[in-house]
Amino acid sequence: MEDIRDYIQQNQQRFIDELIALLKIPSVSADPAFSQDVLDTAQAIKSSLEKAGCDHVEICETPGYPIVYGEKIIDPNLPTVLVYGHYDVQPPDPLDLWESGPFEPVIKKTELHPEGAIFARGACDDKGQMYMHVKAMEFMTTTGQLPCNVKFMIEGEEEVGSESLGWFVENNHDKLANDVILISDTGMISKETPSITTGLRGLSYVEVEVTGPNRDLHSGLYGGAVANPINILAKMIASLHDENKQITIPGFYDKVEELSKEERAEMAKAPFSQEAYNKALDIEAEYGEEGYTTNERNSIRPTLDVNGIWGGYTGEGAKTVIASKAYAKISMRLVPNQDWKEITELFIKHFEGIAPKGVKVKVTPHHGGQGYVTPIDSIGYQAAAKAYETTFGKTPIPQRSGGSIPIVSLFEKELKSKTILMGFGLDSDAIHSPNEHFGIWNYLRGIETIPWFYQYFTALSK
Amino acid sequence: MEDIRDYIQQNQQRFIDELIALLKIPSVSADPAFSQDVLDTAQAIKSSLEKAGCDHVEICETPGYPIVYGEKIIDPNLPTVLVYGHYDVQPPDPLDLWESGPFEPVIKKTELHPEGAIFARGACDDKGQMYMHVKAMEFMTTTGQLPCNVKFMIEGEEEVGSESLGWFVENNHDKLANDVILISDTGMISKETPSITTGLRGLSYVEVEVTGPNRDLHSGLYGGAVANPINILAKMIASLHDENKQITIPGFYDKVEELSKEERAEMAKAPFSQEAYNKALDIEAEYGEEGYTTNERNSIRPTLDVNGIWGGYTGEGAKTVIASKAYAKISMRLVPNQDWKEITELFIKHFEGIAPKGVKVKVTPHHGGQGYVTPIDSIGYQAAAKAYETTFGKTPIPQRSGGSIPIVSLFEKELKSKTILMGFGLDSDAIHSPNEHFGIWNYLRGIETIPWFYQYFTALSK
Repeated sequence: MEDIRDYIQQNQQRFIDELIALLKIPSVSADPAFSQDVLDTAQAIKSSLEKAGCDHVEICETPGYPIVYGEKIIDPNLPTVLVYGHYDVQPPDPLDLWESGPFEPVIKKTELHPEGAIFARGACDDKGQMYMHVKAMEFMTTTGQLPCNVKFMIEGEEEVGSESLGWFVENNHDKLANDVILISDTGMISKETPSITTGLRGLSYVEVEVTGPNRDLHSGLYGGAVANPINILAKMIASLHDENKQITIPGFYDKVEELSKEERAEMAKAPFSQEAYNKALDIEAEYGEEGYTTNERNSIRPTLDVNGIWGGYTGEGAKTVIASKAYAKISMRLVPNQDWKEITELFIKHFEGIAPKGVKVKVTPHHGGQGYVTPIDSIGYQAAAKAYETTFGKTPIPQRSGGSIPIVSLFEKELKSKTILMGFGLDSDAIHSPNEHFGIWNYLRGIETIPWFYQYFTALSK
Repeated sequence: MEDIRDYIQQNQQRFIDELIALLKIPSVSADPAFSQDVLDTAQAIKSSLEKAGCDHVEICETPGYPIVYGEKIIDPNLPTVLVYGHYDVQPPDPLDLWESGPFEPVIKKTELHPEGAIFARGACDDKGQMYMHVKAMEFMTTTGQLPCNVKFMIEGEEEVGSESLGWFVENNHDKLANDVILISDTGMISKETPSITTGLRGLSYVEVEVTGPNRDLHSGLYGGAVANPINILAKMIASLHDENKQITIPGFYDKVEELSKEERAEMAKAPFSQEAYNKALDIEAEYGEEGYTTNERNSIRPTLDVNGIWGGYTGEGAKTVIASKAYAKISMRLVPNQDWKEITELFIKHFEGIAPKGVKVKVTPHHGGQGYVTPIDSIGYQAAAKAYETTFGKTPIPQRSGGSIPIVSLFEKELKSKTILMGFGLDSDAIHSPNEHFGIWNYLRGIETIPWFYQYFTALSK
């Protein structure tokens, strides 16, 4: 299968052009204004799977955005790999911080990407990484080297909670039956240091609304005499962390998995420079839960972050008003054993409980998902590790990620199979941020590495 | 001068129509998008003063929006009244809470206003109350009953700090020379209980910006490891009040005027129902500084309120982001003897001081003004009291207001004269809020009462 390199060399311009075409469609699932674009993207994925050699491709309707399913079954006795990805993207705002249009992909060279990187919303998360699998499939079918059965399941609601996917998986056990699930929606430590994500954090995302007086008031005539919803919201949010930066919600830490000294020592081996980290973010100092390192804080520890806040007058100049309402979007990252639904309940109970008289509080759960850990002694992990060794010449480092792919634990529960997270992105790709990009080197190296996974997984399965 | 009632009866429809025409011009000084409308309003005021009988009217250019000046000097030996008002208005948002367009005035009957009230931004604050003086002037000149000299000074930046007015007053001492300043930009207790505002709170208005990482980050990959500017801003805002709802800024209360038991007892005589107050605002309980009543909290005590807050993702749905920046607009209402510039300095010093490592803080002062108290034994106050007695048949109650008219203390400093605040608005007029309105009864009663002030003031000055 060494010919994969030649194949990529001969077709790389087309691979890049095809991805750019896909990135031009603004498939923002969080904003109804883009619904037609999300649907158009599903159609584009469908035809790309057909071109890649899938025998049977269909757009599966759901209560929400459709799921694109495709498969190529060459022999029922051979193992089956289920590839998951998503074709929706995060909202692009704040737009004014983008150096080029989020949906007008451009290729620019960067320090980390001298060969150039594609700048666009979704370039890495997840259109770029998902499309690597489509092109790897194209190679295997075109050259007759597909060693096992393949199924594709590409959804359009990952950035808003994958609700329809949950419904789809629960109702299609046979159709989705597989021996391993393969996902590229994570990152690796660096181009020189490949890594495989073995752990993900869970997520609970809620929106809160604090209502004070029934109308906006003049802050001079009423200031000091009524509860100001913005001040109250700030006070309530502040109270969610104690002086050690620990979350104060009763019961929040009850089920948190505590890692052993050994496990934490193993984690600490991953190359990391706090100085470089702070420099890259232009911050004077890191900030987080006492007693844990940065890499522990963002992977094995649960967190609570306000993702958005608004209320009152936010226009130009000054307005002396006491707002009637204040709002915030709050998300909690959870670790294995914390149940997101239970944590959401604990949050609601606590948040409503700390509201002072004079305001009314409403908490609306948005979505969530469980955390997950992949065993590194599984065939899937071993196959992935060998694939990286083949193309990177290095054994990948197993790594916990702070991110969440809520459906991974759902897959295990419903489909009884493990998920392997082969990510080719980098921390610096700015996913969920302005100027998201994906290195062309990473993109092509992903396409090169994936077929090896199929080969090793099939071999190890015998 | 009893004929004033007849005059109003014969002309009231025109008085209402003229005010409605003025209210149709969206003179929002805070938003540059409306600058031409603000200028058009100045022109409209100019011609209305000319029609009202002023001899000399001019649009005085300033570094900002112009000031409309008009005068009628009938005898240098007679006293001179300087009338101040403003033709700019507060921004109308939130627009979706208006039952009719903020700049499409409509007359509707309400429980408090069976004769109807004019609904529009600026109906009460201050176009409606300012225009009462123009119509009172019209009456006095038309019927040859103007007993003294009059000067009008109507500005267009009251809602954004009156900076140009300060400059104008400092540079026109002779032009503006007067024996008393008359302003209608406040309210009265009720239609049955007239009151005169004898105290105003000062104001310090600032905008704060908290910057964490140099770009928006993925809350999964970075959550828990970096200072989240929104969480930090919430924490900093929360820390500005202690458990007794007192402001924690060092030195903030040092110069606060403490009222005597007697003065507080006198204040407590004003008719007030906490139950009705809470019911009107649909709040379960009031909220404020321990040890003070609602009427004390919003008049004789300084306060700190967040007027607006924003940061991160505030659109539909969910975005798992850690924002790079978070913002808030914060205003402090000050009481006599607190210097707004000193308080602003104290705020900046304190706010920058409590910022944790990991964020940068920027505080931008917007504007401010000093508090003020009117002596009730002055000729001006006596004349106003007699005017109310004549038209309301009741002695008005002297009352401290929580609002701020920053330029009042400037007038005293620069022009060496006292200001009389004859307000005809009601708390329920919703100034600075959606559905601002001004009762037609209040409007006409104001026009009727003002000429009596001129007469009594001239008589008492002899």
